[in-house]
Amino acid sequence: MKLLEERILRDGKIGEGNVLKVDGFVNHQIDTDFICMLGQEFYRLYRDSGVTKILTIEASGIGIACLTAQYFHVPVVFAKKTKTNNIYADVYTSRVESYTHGTSYDVVVSKEFLLPGDRVLIIDDFLAKGSALLGLIRLIEDAGASVVGAGIVIEKAYQNGGKLVRDMGIRVESLARIAAMDGQGIRFVTEPAGG
Amino acid sequence: MKLLEERILRDGKIGEGNVLKVDGFVNHQIDTDFICMLGQEFYRLYRDSGVTKILTIEASGIGIACLTAQYFHVPVVFAKKTKTNNIYADVYTSRVESYTHGTSYDVVVSKEFLLPGDRVLIIDDFLAKGSALLGLIRLIEDAGASVVGAGIVIEKAYQNGGKLVRDMGIRVESLARIAAMDGQGIRFVTEPAGG
Repeated sequence: MKLLEERILRDGKIGEGNVLKVDGFVNHQIDTDFICMLGQEFYRLYRDSGVTKILTIEASGIGIACLTAQYFHVPVVFAKKTKTNNIYADVYTSRVESYTHGTSYDVVVSKEFLLPGDRVLIIDDFLAKGSALLGLIRLIEDAGASVVGAGIVIEKAYQNGGKLVRDMGIRVESLARIAAMDGQGIRFVTEPAGG
Repeated sequence: MKLLEERILRDGKIGEGNVLKVDGFVNHQIDTDFICMLGQEFYRLYRDSGVTKILTIEASGIGIACLTAQYFHVPVVFAKKTKTNNIYADVYTSRVESYTHGTSYDVVVSKEFLLPGDRVLIIDDFLAKGSALLGLIRLIEDAGASVVGAGIVIEKAYQNGGKLVRDMGIRVESLARIAAMDGQGIRFVTEPAGG
């Protein structure tokens, strides 16, 4: 999505450890008018997929998921992060590794909010190694619901998460796919993602 | 707001320790079509206040804030919770007590996202003793920005947070105000809040 690529080039910052920071419009401050346009694009891509629910993960996915869900007229469910091992009867749980922070955590969703008949679209801000996305997919599968696909704002295509999930036969639509990021700046993938 | 009171009576649950749970449409699962109506109501109440930014607190405030901000065409900034004491140069910090969990935490906002000229509307899901709201007000004051007011989904009017903040001369609009909550059910305040 041209508009997003231009915005990343303009307002994205490369921080320590070659981390892309988009706090100014996606993550900490949310440019709602802009994110609404991304939401409309996710709607265009998945409008014919019979989506009944959008699943995301706290905290930075919530705004994007809500501003997208309004076009589908479906609810958002956000998975909660917890440091403790939650093996409660009333939640689905899966483990997620955070490579950025060198830690891991559980994500949990109440069983009452993911149902066997649900067709779930996953929305998140970033896709890199895919650990969070795989965790969300497991929650949906545990509920006996269907994964319609994933809508990602920024994919780091030089990491293997996108390939991993596409190879499982799951549709992944990323609005910007970064091919490389270094001292020379940010370069985007121009060809479409396989799968 | 009649519509909200009816929804709370229908779908709200009173949990252990007399806690009102609205996970089914506000907090964990978000009924986006419904929250959009609340957002339009906040817009109606504050449309003439020159709002330039909406401030909320992660995680459950974010969806409501984003679905509200789109009517104002202003960005959302969400304060992040952190257990560690953050006295960094690049963030505003204030301390919040969590009476529900018996703990306290810091909320932080990047200095680049709250500016002296900003007229800030605070949006949050609950107002009880007012600790989170007071924390957000301090962040705005530290930035030299103005507090336009607060838009709260559910105020527990039997606790003193709303009175405390209104007595400071700050406008607080709560879409549902609970007068009492017990084994006999939920009763709402019918007269308008002072201040």
